[in-house]
Amino acid sequence: MSTASTINAYAALEAGGPLQAYQIQTGDLGPTEVELEVMYCGICHSDLSMIDNEWGIGQYPMVAGHEVIGRVAAMGEQVSHLKKGTVVGLGWNSDYCETCHTCRTGDLNLCKSAKFTILTNGGFADRVRADMSSLVVIPEGVDPVSAGPLLCAGITVFNPLVQFDIKPTDKVAVIGIGGLGHIALKFLNAWGCEVTAFTSNEGKRKEALSLGAHKTLNSRDAAEIEAAVMSFDLIISTVNVSLDWDLYIQALKPKGRLHFVGALTNPIQFSLFPVLFGQRSISASPVGSPATIETMLEFVAHHKIKPEVEIFPMNQIEAAFEHLKSGKAKYRIVLSQEG
Amino acid sequence: MSTASTINAYAALEAGGPLQAYQIQTGDLGPTEVELEVMYCGICHSDLSMIDNEWGIGQYPMVAGHEVIGRVAAMGEQVSHLKKGTVVGLGWNSDYCETCHTCRTGDLNLCKSAKFTILTNGGFADRVRADMSSLVVIPEGVDPVSAGPLLCAGITVFNPLVQFDIKPTDKVAVIGIGGLGHIALKFLNAWGCEVTAFTSNEGKRKEALSLGAHKTLNSRDAAEIEAAVMSFDLIISTVNVSLDWDLYIQALKPKGRLHFVGALTNPIQFSLFPVLFGQRSISASPVGSPATIETMLEFVAHHKIKPEVEIFPMNQIEAAFEHLKSGKAKYRIVLSQEG
Repeated sequence: MSTASTINAYAALEAGGPLQAYQIQTGDLGPTEVELEVMYCGICHSDLSMIDNEWGIGQYPMVAGHEVIGRVAAMGEQVSHLKKGTVVGLGWNSDYCETCHTCRTGDLNLCKSAKFTILTNGGFADRVRADMSSLVVIPEGVDPVSAGPLLCAGITVFNPLVQFDIKPTDKVAVIGIGGLGHIALKFLNAWGCEVTAFTSNEGKRKEALSLGAHKTLNSRDAAEIEAAVMSFDLIISTVNVSLDWDLYIQALKPKGRLHFVGALTNPIQFSLFPVLFGQRSISASPVGSPATIETMLEFVAHHKIKPEVEIFPMNQIEAAFEHLKSGKAKYRIVLSQEG
Repeated sequence: MSTASTINAYAALEAGGPLQAYQIQTGDLGPTEVELEVMYCGICHSDLSMIDNEWGIGQYPMVAGHEVIGRVAAMGEQVSHLKKGTVVGLGWNSDYCETCHTCRTGDLNLCKSAKFTILTNGGFADRVRADMSSLVVIPEGVDPVSAGPLLCAGITVFNPLVQFDIKPTDKVAVIGIGGLGHIALKFLNAWGCEVTAFTSNEGKRKEALSLGAHKTLNSRDAAEIEAAVMSFDLIISTVNVSLDWDLYIQALKPKGRLHFVGALTNPIQFSLFPVLFGQRSISASPVGSPATIETMLEFVAHHKIKPEVEIFPMNQIEAAFEHLKSGKAKYRIVLSQEG
């Protein structure tokens, strides 16, 4: 029986091009492949960076979209753990090699042969295909409408809490209260931490408190940051602009960590002595592994956490991108294929 | 009974000044203070940096020297765990506050009120005083003649292995095979790791193998470093010059760490993406806590590890410093007060 399919997508035909209706004729499903009927797909700033080829790794025509919630529509012959109609999520990666040492230790998200959903035809479409290794079942208790952003923005800020063994007794700060940062505040509040939001937007200080922060500081006010010297076990930076990192490093406790999840293309520069005398660390990470995504979704269900989303019908994708570019999205945009 | 004392030391009377005979008249010992009769004192590059006030924190007259092996000569009334004649070591710190949260978690070496031995009159002298909290007993099986350098160079490279839970199955590289680096090779070899030495000195490659390295790479040959992509769990940098850190970061495995122990005054600059996609860390640390120094000394005794030292009589301290400045010391200089 043929499993070939026609996918109706929105593609950028060239770097920086507008998103246009675009049809994909697929071959048969591979044995471990799954085809999803897209229900919802979040828009991430990295969709825009990839469409505009800011990172120099784009391939066109490009069907972006990597925060997909969909129903299983068809499965390859080796897929036995899913059923037609199961609601699953697909994030940044659509496949992993599963044979390299990194994959074998469970860190599939760090596999250097992992495929990017954006480059294998993503979720700005009515259907999307991915390897079963990349799909996670959306558990009961997780709202599918707002769950898309968890698959990229969410896991990107959740993963460091798992990787670095963050404890409820830790004091954690988040720089930048946008798509990633606002979910970080919710997670950290539920994690039991004392949570501080750094934002340059005075209007967002109040919102940050309602999102889960206990304190706020102005990310561009050197005096305010200096006064917070030796305060934090972890600072998560979600911004894609350069700040005075030395100031933030001095706001870390001894053994504290400044961790970057925002995709910053400028080099990072810091002075060694404050790092050295405080045995501090500077690090960064991308999304998480499928196992960590599952752990996150259980945590989300238990704590009834929802990203703040604005819904656009999928066929208004250009308007949705304009809204993203305006910087006014609160806080994450989701495209809907549902009714 | 008076415990006042006359100490015959060598001091820099001003920043960058020559080392001159200098007498200190002390008051009575404080209740937790201990006076040592100096047997041996290592010379560390940081003695020179402090004498020359390169870090801007010098106070003069300055009696440097912070790799001291000495016999207990006199004790304050609260010191009950030591005896006259016990051979002890004194390193970078001569006292800790012992009441801050950092001290209370055992990380006395990160106490922001810790005193620097160099600034409380150090070991370039016949006698030296320090708080009992900073002194470690030199166990049987540790050679006192060569043990001085363990108290600063040694603990500085040993501490990261403890702090970051380095395993014998890890692959570790050391940049710079000098005072710190040569001890790192010995420690890592005994730790069970596969050890790589990065050196810019072709002549040192053979020596590095005899010191414990299993492989060597040229630290200034970009092609050689590029070929080592994704090789190391940990790279310890002991140098005080800027290198192309992006190259070294790419030589780290996923989750690998580039760790600085060399006192580098230039800012450190790196590109975020290789750090982010590999979930890598960049960090630094100073010496270790008294407890970690004790652990190191037990490890040293068990594995019969000795720093490579050249001995100068204390009264030839100026010649010893000239030898240090020549860059030809192999690998560490120790001043002796013993016969």
